[in-house]
Amino acid sequence: MQAEKLTAQIFQKKSFLCIGLDTDLNRIPEFLQGEQDPVFEFNKRIIEATSDLAVAYKPNLAFYEAMGPSGWRSLERTLEVIPDDIMVIADAKRGDIGNTARKYAETFFQRYDFEAVTVAPYMGKDSVQPFLEYEDKWVFLLALTSNAGAQDFQYISDGKTLHEHVLEKSQSWANESVGELGFVVGATRPEDLGRIRQLAPKSWFLVPGVGAQGGTVEEVASAALTDFGGLLVNSSRGIIYASNGADFAQAARNAALNLQQKMAEFL
Amino acid sequence: MQAEKLTAQIFQKKSFLCIGLDTDLNRIPEFLQGEQDPVFEFNKRIIEATSDLAVAYKPNLAFYEAMGPSGWRSLERTLEVIPDDIMVIADAKRGDIGNTARKYAETFFQRYDFEAVTVAPYMGKDSVQPFLEYEDKWVFLLALTSNAGAQDFQYISDGKTLHEHVLEKSQSWANESVGELGFVVGATRPEDLGRIRQLAPKSWFLVPGVGAQGGTVEEVASAALTDFGGLLVNSSRGIIYASNGADFAQAARNAALNLQQKMAEFL
Repeated sequence: MQAEKLTAQIFQKKSFLCIGLDTDLNRIPEFLQGEQDPVFEFNKRIIEATSDLAVAYKPNLAFYEAMGPSGWRSLERTLEVIPDDIMVIADAKRGDIGNTARKYAETFFQRYDFEAVTVAPYMGKDSVQPFLEYEDKWVFLLALTSNAGAQDFQYISDGKTLHEHVLEKSQSWANESVGELGFVVGATRPEDLGRIRQLAPKSWFLVPGVGAQGGTVEEVASAALTDFGGLLVNSSRGIIYASNGADFAQAARNAALNLQQKMAEFL
Repeated sequence: MQAEKLTAQIFQKKSFLCIGLDTDLNRIPEFLQGEQDPVFEFNKRIIEATSDLAVAYKPNLAFYEAMGPSGWRSLERTLEVIPDDIMVIADAKRGDIGNTARKYAETFFQRYDFEAVTVAPYMGKDSVQPFLEYEDKWVFLLALTSNAGAQDFQYISDGKTLHEHVLEKSQSWANESVGELGFVVGATRPEDLGRIRQLAPKSWFLVPGVGAQGGTVEEVASAALTDFGGLLVNSSRGIIYASNGADFAQAARNAALNLQQKMAEFL
C-alpha cells in the first residue's frame, strides 16, 4: 500500500485507528463456538462492524499459530474479508539472519497478502532488509515498546539510547530500499513519543498501548500526529473483547467509535 | 528435558552437534518431490541418517511457516520421528509482550512438543518470562548473534555492551523461574565467545555460525565447552544440503560425522 493511500484513508475516515485481532478461541462468545471456524466468524463480524472506523487491522500471529494449521486457515479467511483499501499488518515481531528473514518476508508478503509486518531490530540490518525489498510493503520496526520490559534494554545509552540508535540506523537502510519503514512506539510513554517524532519526522508510527495498557489517544495524537497522518493507534482487547455476549460486534463498534471520535478532533 | 540428560547425551555420543532443519521445498532432491509430504520425507531421512551423531535438532520455523498450514503439518510429523532422548529446539526468535509471549510459549511447549525455543531479548523481561514458566523447558535467548547485523546494535555500550546486559539481566530472571535459560552466541566471533563464557559460566550456549557462516568447531569448543558440556554447536545448510542427489542422506551423515569427530576430540 502506498503511503499516500493510507494518508487519504485517514483524512477521509477521520481515523487513525488500527484494530488488533488478537483473537483467542477461549474468549470468543459461546454462541459462535459451534461454528465450523469460530475464529474467522468472530473476526468477520468484528470487521463488518468496524471497517468504516478503522484504517488498519493487525492480526497478532501468536494467537493464530497457537491453534496449529487451522489457525493459519482462520487467518487466511480473515484476510479475505478485510476491505482492500484497509491496511493489514502481520504482528509477528520476526527477526533472524538474512536467508531466514527472506523466508519470513515471503510468508507474509507473498503467501499471505499482508501490507506490513512488525520486525524486531536486535539482529540488525540483514534481519530487516529482506522485508524492505518489497515495493509498497511496510516494516514496522520495534523502537520503544509499550510493555514494562521496554525498560530493560531499550534505554541503554552510549550517549544515544538503543531505541534512538535503532531509529537512526534503520532510516538509512530504508533510504536504500523500495519498502516503507515505520516504527512501533508505545503509547504508554507519551513524553518519549514526542522526542521520537523529532528523530523520525517523516516516518509512520504504529502505536500500541492505548486502552488495556493505559495510554490515551489525546496524548499520542498531540505528540506524534503529522500533516500526512503518520500515525496508527492500535487497540486490540479494548475493542474486540468489549463484550463477550451476543452483542460483541456492536460493543466492538461502540469502543472503536469512541476512539475514532477522539481521533476526529485532531484531523 | 533436564540439563543432566543433555549432558549425558553429549558425553555418551561424544557430540554436541545440533542439526538445523532449515528445510526448503526448493532445495529438496528432485526424487522426493513426488512424495505426499516431501519436507517430512526429507527430514525423516536426514534424522535417520544422523540421530546417532546429533544431540539436538533445530527446525527453523521460517521455512515451515512459508509453506502455510501444510508446513506446520510437515513440522509436526518431523517432531514425531525424532528420538525422545534428543533435544528439539524451535528456532523461532519470538519476542512480544507478556500475554502474546504466553501464547507463543503455549504453541511451542504445549501444542508442539519442543524442548526449547529461541527468543529475542529486545522487549525485556515480560517477553521472556512466560517461556521460563515451563519446567524442564528451555529458552535460548539471543545474546550475540552470528550475522553481520550483530554489529549494528549488540555492541552498543554504556560501559557494558547490550549483549552483556542481556546476559546479566536475564540470568536473574532465570533464577526466579523453573525453566532453563541458555543463550545464542555466534561461532563467527570466537574471541567474544570466551568472554561471554566467563559472564555465564553455568549457562548452555547454542552456537550457530559453524560451516556456511564460517566458524569452526575447534574455536568454539576451546572457548565455550564446560565440564557439563554447556554447548550445542549448530550446523544447518552444511549438513542437510551436503548433496542434492539421491545420496543426500549419506552426504548429510558424512558432514555430521566430520563435525562429530572434531567434537569427540574435546570430550
